[in-house]
Amino acid sequence: MTSVLDPSLPVRVQMERLVRQKQLEITKGMESLDESSFHTDEWLRGESGGGGRSMVLQEGKTFEKAGVNISVVHGVLPPQAIEKMKADHKNIKTDAGGSVKFFACGLSLVIHPWNPHAPTTHLNYRYFEITNSDGSPQTWWFGGGADLTPAYIYDEDCVQFHQKHKDALDQYKPDLYPRFKKWCDKYFFIPHRNETRGIGGIFFDDFDELPAQKCLEMIEACFNAFLPAYLPLVERRKDTPYTDQQKQWQQVRRGRYVEFNLVYDRGTKFGLQTPGSRIESILMSLPMTASWLYDHKAPGPEEQRLLDVVKTPVDWIEL
Amino acid sequence: MTSVLDPSLPVRVQMERLVRQKQLEITKGMESLDESSFHTDEWLRGESGGGGRSMVLQEGKTFEKAGVNISVVHGVLPPQAIEKMKADHKNIKTDAGGSVKFFACGLSLVIHPWNPHAPTTHLNYRYFEITNSDGSPQTWWFGGGADLTPAYIYDEDCVQFHQKHKDALDQYKPDLYPRFKKWCDKYFFIPHRNETRGIGGIFFDDFDELPAQKCLEMIEACFNAFLPAYLPLVERRKDTPYTDQQKQWQQVRRGRYVEFNLVYDRGTKFGLQTPGSRIESILMSLPMTASWLYDHKAPGPEEQRLLDVVKTPVDWIEL
Repeated sequence: MTSVLDPSLPVRVQMERLVRQKQLEITKGMESLDESSFHTDEWLRGESGGGGRSMVLQEGKTFEKAGVNISVVHGVLPPQAIEKMKADHKNIKTDAGGSVKFFACGLSLVIHPWNPHAPTTHLNYRYFEITNSDGSPQTWWFGGGADLTPAYIYDEDCVQFHQKHKDALDQYKPDLYPRFKKWCDKYFFIPHRNETRGIGGIFFDDFDELPAQKCLEMIEACFNAFLPAYLPLVERRKDTPYTDQQKQWQQVRRGRYVEFNLVYDRGTKFGLQTPGSRIESILMSLPMTASWLYDHKAPGPEEQRLLDVVKTPVDWIEL
Repeated sequence: MTSVLDPSLPVRVQMERLVRQKQLEITKGMESLDESSFHTDEWLRGESGGGGRSMVLQEGKTFEKAGVNISVVHGVLPPQAIEKMKADHKNIKTDAGGSVKFFACGLSLVIHPWNPHAPTTHLNYRYFEITNSDGSPQTWWFGGGADLTPAYIYDEDCVQFHQKHKDALDQYKPDLYPRFKKWCDKYFFIPHRNETRGIGGIFFDDFDELPAQKCLEMIEACFNAFLPAYLPLVERRKDTPYTDQQKQWQQVRRGRYVEFNLVYDRGTKFGLQTPGSRIESILMSLPMTASWLYDHKAPGPEEQRLLDVVKTPVDWIEL
């Protein structure tokens, strides 16, 4: 695949190019498995600076709800926000008034297929930069990851999803996949259920341990891993026959998805608390349908297998 | 209705009697509109002391999901919890180790009917006591309320629900209803949607401005107002014909219900954060089914009316 990166340009410009390109590639890839098309909304952050583009496919043939959102925002960070960031980034320098300029750019997607045998997935890659008054980056980092949330476990699907992401990361540093895999299991943990949201994937944050251009390349490689990691799984499962009971199990698992996103997900919480943020783009991640049944138990061994996996994360490939 | 209160007994004993009695009365009242019965689970809080009884009717003829839960718990409050409480109750005295003994007892219910014209309701009344070493109450308060969440507005339903609760409170102090009505609109506000969860009702907390026995009588009166305030509404609407679009609107509104409960409701948040709490009893409040549609708009004037009401709370009866 041809790279859209160009080292002669600032990192922020390259990252914006990248997420714009990947939004188009990924939505096109999804459309190849559906008969519906994505609907596009452009939105602006108003006075605060920046905006984004939300692309949503709802009630398609294969996908119940799929949202792919990019945002490119910039502005001034208030002192409280800076204080929190200093916990992880001690070298942030503020101006005389205690403020700093920032730039943030990312792509975020959640895909919920209809068929309970086809897994839900989530991906997010983002770049954050604190900018000097001359426009050069002062402090910067990347974050993100991709993870899979099936209602039924197919080992080959889980292995494929992990393997494609491992292959992408292994080109940059051999310890990245094992670290990001564990980080993912830890991040997507639902304490009140004592289970993870799904079967994992990769997750990282505050990442700046490679030169910025190398990080960009790594992010591009992760992006490129996504469609080969996910689309074949949907293709294999989208027409698998299913029972009402299997559909109900999917709905109950989607309830757990909602619980994680509304109660624990940092991005969602931050978005809901930020005045002026676009709620529809933030809550795009929620499934079209979800269910809560009182004291619901796994109805059979296949559902129990899922519970076993989310209660004790599995190393799908050798670490 | 005969009172179960007996001033010769400690307040905590009377409150426990009250919630036990009301759980039976209310579930019996609900069953009179359904063909299914409530299923009962007794649960214990383990070493921590106390327990409760959850009664659930799921997939009945009238009710999609109805949960009525009582809990009677006691134990020792850790110093952090006491610090928080001191914000509202300055006279709490701790023992030498900084701890205090507590007793808490309450009934909590949420009822979701199938029919989109029949409203969802929630009720909760609770008593909290910090206990001296000799077993007498040191600091105590009552809290709770009842509120209505329709998907479609029927003015007479909203008025009836409010009027019955006003009548109950007016016997004790004329300013209670106006205060508790406003408090309810404020408490059940969803900031990220800029709307209230429903059409209000009454809500209060840290209530100790009447003698404890009078408070108990007031709580009993509020309990007694509930069935006359709610059951006739369900009876009127449970067989109203509805379209697929109306059912979908109800599902979207239930999504908002989930958002409030998981993101803002203090009781739910406290429960999810408390190790050893019974998650199934806490999340019993969530609807059996809910939906999130991207950028969904009110499809017609009846749905728009609901949005107008939740965006600008109405005084259903003169304050």
